[in-house]
Amino acid sequence: MKLLLAPLTALSLAICIASATAREQGNLDLGPAMVRMAELEIEPAQLDAYKAILAAEQATSVRLEPGVLMLHSVSIADDPTKIRLLEVYANKSAYESHVRSPHFLKYKALTANMVRSLRLIDTDPILLCSKTMATRVPQAVCLSPTK
Amino acid sequence: MKLLLAPLTALSLAICIASATAREQGNLDLGPAMVRMAELEIEPAQLDAYKAILAAEQATSVRLEPGVLMLHSVSIADDPTKIRLLEVYANKSAYESHVRSPHFLKYKALTANMVRSLRLIDTDPILLCSKTMATRVPQAVCLSPTK
Repeated sequence: MKLLLAPLTALSLAICIASATAREQGNLDLGPAMVRMAELEIEPAQLDAYKAILAAEQATSVRLEPGVLMLHSVSIADDPTKIRLLEVYANKSAYESHVRSPHFLKYKALTANMVRSLRLIDTDPILLCSKTMATRVPQAVCLSPTK
Repeated sequence: MKLLLAPLTALSLAICIASATAREQGNLDLGPAMVRMAELEIEPAQLDAYKAILAAEQATSVRLEPGVLMLHSVSIADDPTKIRLLEVYANKSAYESHVRSPHFLKYKALTANMVRSLRLIDTDPILLCSKTMATRVPQAVCLSPTK
């Protein structure tokens, strides 16, 4: 039991120390991140199908790609066919790798006839703050651009 | 040394197990979250001051308020006086508590003459996916609405 637990305990201790360090140091450096918004309009009859395909692509991208830091999607309450995305990539090459990934290409192919319009908006991040939900005691982590 | 480490190790072990569980279970339930976007236009001469006050308010809110899950802010690259926010509150009462907090009221007072326009947009979340940066090994956490 002791042998089995040892590596796990060392890892979790490292995680705990990393969390405490992040908390004490305040904002983390976002580095040369690429942050973008997207505004889409979806064919009304395809909305449910589109949202399911989009959600699957988001989850796969953030789970599998080290450089995909956030993918958030919402629909406008008053006009649910209008979708907004906030996308955060570690850097430009992480984005370029993302758009060549099999799951992104699959998303593009499956939704090609569902998207009425797509507007990509380059942005400069001011501050990205999230409660970290992967820890039992939620912690705040804020990412700010390099000064 | 052993006595000092014991509680920390137990906590970090719990954190590690929580993370593993979240990962294995896929998306976490976002519950009755309130998710909103805001579009602001700022007086050009006040832009740097506004961004500093906004960032301070975001960081304080996510750190101090249990129900403020995310506050992300960006400026549009082609027109930096246009600011976009994505705000995620655990529920409506967390939002109501937030807008009564001393740090939010201070932000509103300090920026009252800096904001040319403010548009609040109610949204329905589709999926909110982030890489958890508080852990040494980043993990993906996705929050989806209750089905």
